[in-house]
Amino acid sequence: MKEFFKVQTPDEVYKKLDRFKPLASEKVGIEDSLHRVLSEDISSSINLPEFRRSTMDGFALKAKDTYGASEKDPAIIRLTGEIPMGKVSNMEIDEGEAIKVATGGMVPNGADAVQMVEFTECVDSDTLHVFKTLSPLENVIQVGEDVKAGETVLHKGHLIRPQDIGLMAGIGKTDVRVYLRPRVGIISSGDEIIPIDHIPAPGEIRDINRYTVVTMVKEAGGIPFFLGISKDLFNDLKEKIELGLRESDMVVITGGSSVGTLDLTREVLQSLPGTEILAHGISIRPGKPTLLADIQGKPFLGLPGHPVSAIVIFHFFGKPLLKILSGLSREVIWHQIKVKAKASRNIPSVPGREDYVRVKIEERDGRLWAHPIFGKSGAIAHLVHANGLIRIGMNEEGLEEGEEAEVFLL
Amino acid sequence: MKEFFKVQTPDEVYKKLDRFKPLASEKVGIEDSLHRVLSEDISSSINLPEFRRSTMDGFALKAKDTYGASEKDPAIIRLTGEIPMGKVSNMEIDEGEAIKVATGGMVPNGADAVQMVEFTECVDSDTLHVFKTLSPLENVIQVGEDVKAGETVLHKGHLIRPQDIGLMAGIGKTDVRVYLRPRVGIISSGDEIIPIDHIPAPGEIRDINRYTVVTMVKEAGGIPFFLGISKDLFNDLKEKIELGLRESDMVVITGGSSVGTLDLTREVLQSLPGTEILAHGISIRPGKPTLLADIQGKPFLGLPGHPVSAIVIFHFFGKPLLKILSGLSREVIWHQIKVKAKASRNIPSVPGREDYVRVKIEERDGRLWAHPIFGKSGAIAHLVHANGLIRIGMNEEGLEEGEEAEVFLL
Repeated sequence: MKEFFKVQTPDEVYKKLDRFKPLASEKVGIEDSLHRVLSEDISSSINLPEFRRSTMDGFALKAKDTYGASEKDPAIIRLTGEIPMGKVSNMEIDEGEAIKVATGGMVPNGADAVQMVEFTECVDSDTLHVFKTLSPLENVIQVGEDVKAGETVLHKGHLIRPQDIGLMAGIGKTDVRVYLRPRVGIISSGDEIIPIDHIPAPGEIRDINRYTVVTMVKEAGGIPFFLGISKDLFNDLKEKIELGLRESDMVVITGGSSVGTLDLTREVLQSLPGTEILAHGISIRPGKPTLLADIQGKPFLGLPGHPVSAIVIFHFFGKPLLKILSGLSREVIWHQIKVKAKASRNIPSVPGREDYVRVKIEERDGRLWAHPIFGKSGAIAHLVHANGLIRIGMNEEGLEEGEEAEVFLL
Repeated sequence: MKEFFKVQTPDEVYKKLDRFKPLASEKVGIEDSLHRVLSEDISSSINLPEFRRSTMDGFALKAKDTYGASEKDPAIIRLTGEIPMGKVSNMEIDEGEAIKVATGGMVPNGADAVQMVEFTECVDSDTLHVFKTLSPLENVIQVGEDVKAGETVLHKGHLIRPQDIGLMAGIGKTDVRVYLRPRVGIISSGDEIIPIDHIPAPGEIRDINRYTVVTMVKEAGGIPFFLGISKDLFNDLKEKIELGLRESDMVVITGGSSVGTLDLTREVLQSLPGTEILAHGISIRPGKPTLLADIQGKPFLGLPGHPVSAIVIFHFFGKPLLKILSGLSREVIWHQIKVKAKASRNIPSVPGREDYVRVKIEERDGRLWAHPIFGKSGAIAHLVHANGLIRIGMNEEGLEEGEEAEVFLL
């Protein structure tokens, strides 16, 4: 990259991602909303439960009728009926009375607790012995205890999980507004890059990056489409980038194996109207030559051509960009659950850049250990043996054996 | 459940899952193989790289020509040419000579190292000053260093990630055999359960479980199809279960809100040929009434009707079953990355069962803390606030504030 372009720290670059905005939204059935992002707040118009429900198979009664009851001295209660599951009943309970209820069934008026069947015995058809004392409200879910009418149960920007869909089902919401999935145009570039079904002549390399970037975009919830392999020629690159910008919400290019490719890419971007180069050069390893631009509001990400660098940079910059376009709330975008692991041996690093070393995480004696998988950044097989990236901070000289650090799962 | 059916521990039940076998396989393009499971070993017919490649922009030379070089006393080398990216060359290097190469480019014969451009200066068109000493092999990827011809690079039973797809692309593999995705028939049962677009009469409950189970099956890589809501009637249940067994590889039923529903389900199963009940009652909370059977080799899982119990049990038993059918290797099925978190307050539990308490994991002072989200097991909203399940072992009485335990992410 040109010398006058200042290398920035990852944090400086992350701050610049905030300028991008979520896409528009669409309505989908809740079954199809899994892993999409809510573009509306969801509030409930009803209480959940809508009636008082028993959490046990047992007998609804007044708790005070059981006070002092024991194995030796059971409370003696009159059994006045049964409320079957799914049935509503106007039955009421008076002092000294009980009604049989099933788990999930309605608790009749007058009752304030449910005694579990295990602590009772029906001595005849209308006499119940209760062997254990109960407190009021025990084994009863109150009206609105789960959700109160009018309550906002899910917020805009939330990533939808199965339990969230369950809650929407419970309040009768059949469809929901979610942000559109980002469409991502993907270009491979480099004179030496050939389609994978070709036999490489000496010096040529199969297009690995097409496949890793396409599938990482899928994994991050985007819709990838591949725009082809570009030669290191201004016009070829420009044509593919323009097509990508027309047809998609974000464009990703992998820069061949040569750093120079991303220089040419930058020249193409600068020839397009409304381009702002946000970064060219990030103090991260692997991945220093990374290029980031804003083209009329659409993010453009230029990844190094080395397959491992491309994967690492897409993980740390491409995925957050996709999450921003997907409308995910800001806290969640930057909050990735990391695990802590101890280095199984010394891992050297050079200060002045964030270093992400491929590691294999293994559990031993109840602790997580990170075994570094050393390999030059072009070596994809090393990443296949790895399942995480251990972080060595900008100002650290490496990790000593046994030292603990954060690992991002791959 | 009937008293004569002995409650089993989770580990006893896990052992019984081993009897189920992976499904058949199919061939897919590598782009479509993401998150599928390999049903064949993948070996490479070629070396990767196929030629010696430079990992830097710089100059290929003989390392010994740089020995003793320094800023003050550079090695003086004759520049004899350049190998452009993607081009093969027969150029050779002799003592005292260098050839310009780009990152990823071919390293010419005779050279054994590449000096980075930063440590050199071209003083004229054919004279290079080198300011730093190099070791042999430095900045050169050797033939086969990434992958050796004949090497098995990926094994049967492996879950395919983007980097694995990248490796297959690199060795020219365009499609791959993977296990079929399991088809899962899903039944909701219970007289009180109604479709979610209906307005519940008092005592009725919307069918939350259909939506959580369908989407958890999707999340685990299965193909869900919903067979309908069954009344608590032998014939209705039997018809839906038989349909499910005909059309799918696994059947999941949620048992209404009543424990009794799963008793009726067991009776139906026992009326079908080739049924073996493997468990009815597991010492786990929530989820004790769980029913597991083998019907002519197909797994049948009966989940409790309470939405939270159904989610927890599906997580711990349904997902492993789906992974077994998907052909995932045994080690991976049982190896889920858990995080360790400290309890933010006392969490009580009763010994004699594994207790999974819903928690919200939060990071504070670089540590993970688990805040228990207490709620009765019918309360789906509590699970929406949670992002993990903290495990309290069979023989423990609970966790004290600050005590550390394993958390399964939800």
